[in-house]
Amino acid sequence: MSVKVYLAGPEVFLPNAREQLNIKIALTKAAGLTPVSPGDFVVPPQPTRRQFGHAISEIDEKMMDSADAIIANLTPYHGVSADVGTCYELGYMCAQGKLAYAYTNVAADMRTRTVEHYGGDVFTDANGRLRGRRTGLSVEDVDMIDNLMMQGGIERRGGQVIVHDAAPDRLYTDTTAFEICLRLLVERATQ
Amino acid sequence: MSVKVYLAGPEVFLPNAREQLNIKIALTKAAGLTPVSPGDFVVPPQPTRRQFGHAISEIDEKMMDSADAIIANLTPYHGVSADVGTCYELGYMCAQGKLAYAYTNVAADMRTRTVEHYGGDVFTDANGRLRGRRTGLSVEDVDMIDNLMMQGGIERRGGQVIVHDAAPDRLYTDTTAFEICLRLLVERATQ
Repeated sequence: MSVKVYLAGPEVFLPNAREQLNIKIALTKAAGLTPVSPGDFVVPPQPTRRQFGHAISEIDEKMMDSADAIIANLTPYHGVSADVGTCYELGYMCAQGKLAYAYTNVAADMRTRTVEHYGGDVFTDANGRLRGRRTGLSVEDVDMIDNLMMQGGIERRGGQVIVHDAAPDRLYTDTTAFEICLRLLVERATQ
Repeated sequence: MSVKVYLAGPEVFLPNAREQLNIKIALTKAAGLTPVSPGDFVVPPQPTRRQFGHAISEIDEKMMDSADAIIANLTPYHGVSADVGTCYELGYMCAQGKLAYAYTNVAADMRTRTVEHYGGDVFTDANGRLRGRRTGLSVEDVDMIDNLMMQGGIERRGGQVIVHDAAPDRLYTDTTAFEICLRLLVERATQ
C-alpha cells in the first residue's frame, strides 16, 4: 500500500493556495506517494468564527492521524521562524512516531536570522551565550535551521531537513527542496 | 499520584531563565502539581553544536513523554506568533492525548497582530479574505490568539487558552495567566 504523506506548510495562506497545493499534490503522486493536504476538504459553515477554526483543526488532525509521514515546509513565516501551525503539526506527527521530513527555502540558519532580527545588535553574555541587546533573549546557536525541537525531532527519528536558497519571489512556491524530501521519503519507505 | 505537568515556553531564552523557571516550578508545586521543565536537566557536552541540540531535543521529549499535561506559554516571540519550539511541544502533547492548557501575555489576537505586522496595509480579496498587501498572504481571522491548530487542539480536548494583558516589560515574566492555567488544570484533574 502506498505511503500516505501529510503536506504541512503555510501554502494555505497564499493568494494562489489551491494552485500551489495542487502542484505539491501532483508531485507527491508522481513520486508514488499518497498526499493528504490541508485544504483538501471543504469545511462546513459554522455558527461562529471560533467554531470554524475548531472544524479546520479537527479535519487537519484527522488527516494527520490517517497519514504515515509528514513533509513540513519550515520556511520562515511572519517572523524569524516557521509557521507555528506547521510546527504544531510536526510535533503532532513526531509524537506518533510517523516518518518526518522538512525543508526550508531560506538558506540563512536560525542564528543568522535571529541576529538579523536584532539588526546585528547582539552581545555575548558572561556564559558565552549570544543575546539580543534590546531584549536580552538568547540567540539559539546549535547549527540548525530553526528551533532545535523541530530539527532535533526530525533528525533523531532518521528524517532529514533540506535547505534550499530560493529566490525571494519564490519563497513559498519553489518546490526544489520539497521534491528532495519526496525522494528521501520514498527511499526510506521502500527500504 | 500528583499530576505531572510539562512547563513549555520561551522562558529558557530569558537572561534570568533559571530564576523565571524556578518561579513557575514553585507555583506549580504550590498548586499541588508536579512540574517538569526544560532546563531541569544538565545537558552533557557533545562533539558538535548540532548534537548538543539533539541532546536537548531528546531530553525535552522524554520529559513530555513522562508528563500528564502541558501548560504552554504562547506569548508572541520573535515575530507575530508564539515560540515555535513551544508549538511543536503542544502538538506533541496533544497527539498523546495529554491535558493541554495555554496562555498568552499579549491581549491582541492573531488577526490584530497580523494586521499590525503589515502596518495596517491589508485588503479584502474577492472571497472576503483579509490579506497583507505586501505579500498577499492571508490573515487568519477565527477569533483565536494564534494559529488555529494550537487553540483548536487545546479547546477541542477540553482545555482552555487564557489571555492576559501584561505590561510590556513583564511580557515573559508575568505569571497571572499561568496561575489561572494551574488552577484550571487542578480542577480538571481532580474531577
